[in-house]
Amino acid sequence: MDDLPVLGLDADDTLWENEVHFRETERRFVELMAPWADGPTTEAVLLDTERANVPITGYGVKGFVLSMVETAIAVSDGSVEPADISQVLEWGRQMLDAPVTLLPDVAATIRTLADDHRLLLITKGDLTDQRRKVDSSGLTDHFWRIEVVAEKSTHAYREVLGRHGIDPTEFVMVGNSVPSDVIPVLEVGGRAVHIPHHLTWALETATVSDIDGHEFPILDSFTELPAFLADWLHRD
Amino acid sequence: MDDLPVLGLDADDTLWENEVHFRETERRFVELMAPWADGPTTEAVLLDTERANVPITGYGVKGFVLSMVETAIAVSDGSVEPADISQVLEWGRQMLDAPVTLLPDVAATIRTLADDHRLLLITKGDLTDQRRKVDSSGLTDHFWRIEVVAEKSTHAYREVLGRHGIDPTEFVMVGNSVPSDVIPVLEVGGRAVHIPHHLTWALETATVSDIDGHEFPILDSFTELPAFLADWLHRD
Repeated sequence: MDDLPVLGLDADDTLWENEVHFRETERRFVELMAPWADGPTTEAVLLDTERANVPITGYGVKGFVLSMVETAIAVSDGSVEPADISQVLEWGRQMLDAPVTLLPDVAATIRTLADDHRLLLITKGDLTDQRRKVDSSGLTDHFWRIEVVAEKSTHAYREVLGRHGIDPTEFVMVGNSVPSDVIPVLEVGGRAVHIPHHLTWALETATVSDIDGHEFPILDSFTELPAFLADWLHRD
Repeated sequence: MDDLPVLGLDADDTLWENEVHFRETERRFVELMAPWADGPTTEAVLLDTERANVPITGYGVKGFVLSMVETAIAVSDGSVEPADISQVLEWGRQMLDAPVTLLPDVAATIRTLADDHRLLLITKGDLTDQRRKVDSSGLTDHFWRIEVVAEKSTHAYREVLGRHGIDPTEFVMVGNSVPSDVIPVLEVGGRAVHIPHHLTWALETATVSDIDGHEFPILDSFTELPAFLADWLHRD
């Protein structure tokens, strides 16, 4: 076990659905704000609010709910009803209680990967919510270690790899976010595989300048990962 | 270094002020709610709301702000002004931005302790905020490892000790909360030192039945810790 290669895995939108819950809530929020603003306006104010808040609140549902409340007051110029705010809080509770839906064939693929890798789950967001999702995924026993970090920065990857005694040059990370799962891993000397999800939050979308100078493989689905890794890791 | 004993340290209200910020915000919140309810009523509704929310939101400022917003709407029976909700959000931002105030002589005491212990900080709450406080404490370099957990349960202590290869019978935890820093550590076979803080949140207060059957030393201040440990650890 100790000499198996370590494979880092993102969780949200790599192993299970996440962004879809944010999108669905945002869709309802836009409707709630319809008396005061059109959809693109509400969406733009919400995104700006999130962008300003994330550095102090971190990622996850709680910060999203706080940003929606702030946006509701701003967009309505202070005329939103408290009952509407209650509705936003209730959507937050529903998100924090939503069942975990694995992406197609993830359970079987994880079992295959766990046969010849030590699986290190690295996810960011709220601790309580991320742990709840891991626990309800039914996958916990396949993970070697589970790390919830505040931000997937080069600093965070160095710290996680350091504390588990992992040589970055022997580490491979897999995830749907180029800025979080790919670029910082390449920057600390590791390798990364990008598996895009059809829904990606604006703040997780890479710009051309982010990607500039970096090369990494892109797979269509998580199911392809075992065969791809068997080939990629042996060839290099 | 590797053979130095591991000393677990709580952070909030053990190394630096924390509860005082919650109390001050709660005092202002009670004033804000004065048109609708007296102090004890607002405090009781807020505490009930927090007790219901903590299992899904976890600990920390973001959950506290969400509970205040929910309480404001409930206590005012839906007649609170959006401007008041904005005020609550602003207090949250101030808490997330408040400077870290070390308790008396903590910096010098930590330096002394780090000479002959591996210091393992174990704190709970929001990842982003807890990491910010550690970073601004000026103490980071003295800590061997830093762990932010969702809940200080026996399960969490077993996991943290396991992943760092620490034998529970050789582990000592120090903190201001009996339910979080003392009881679960004793239950996993470790030892714990209680250093009460004059402000303790109702949900961190131990009941007589919690303590029943457990024995642990209580110190008046963090400054006493090095001398106490030198005596306690050598005697046993």
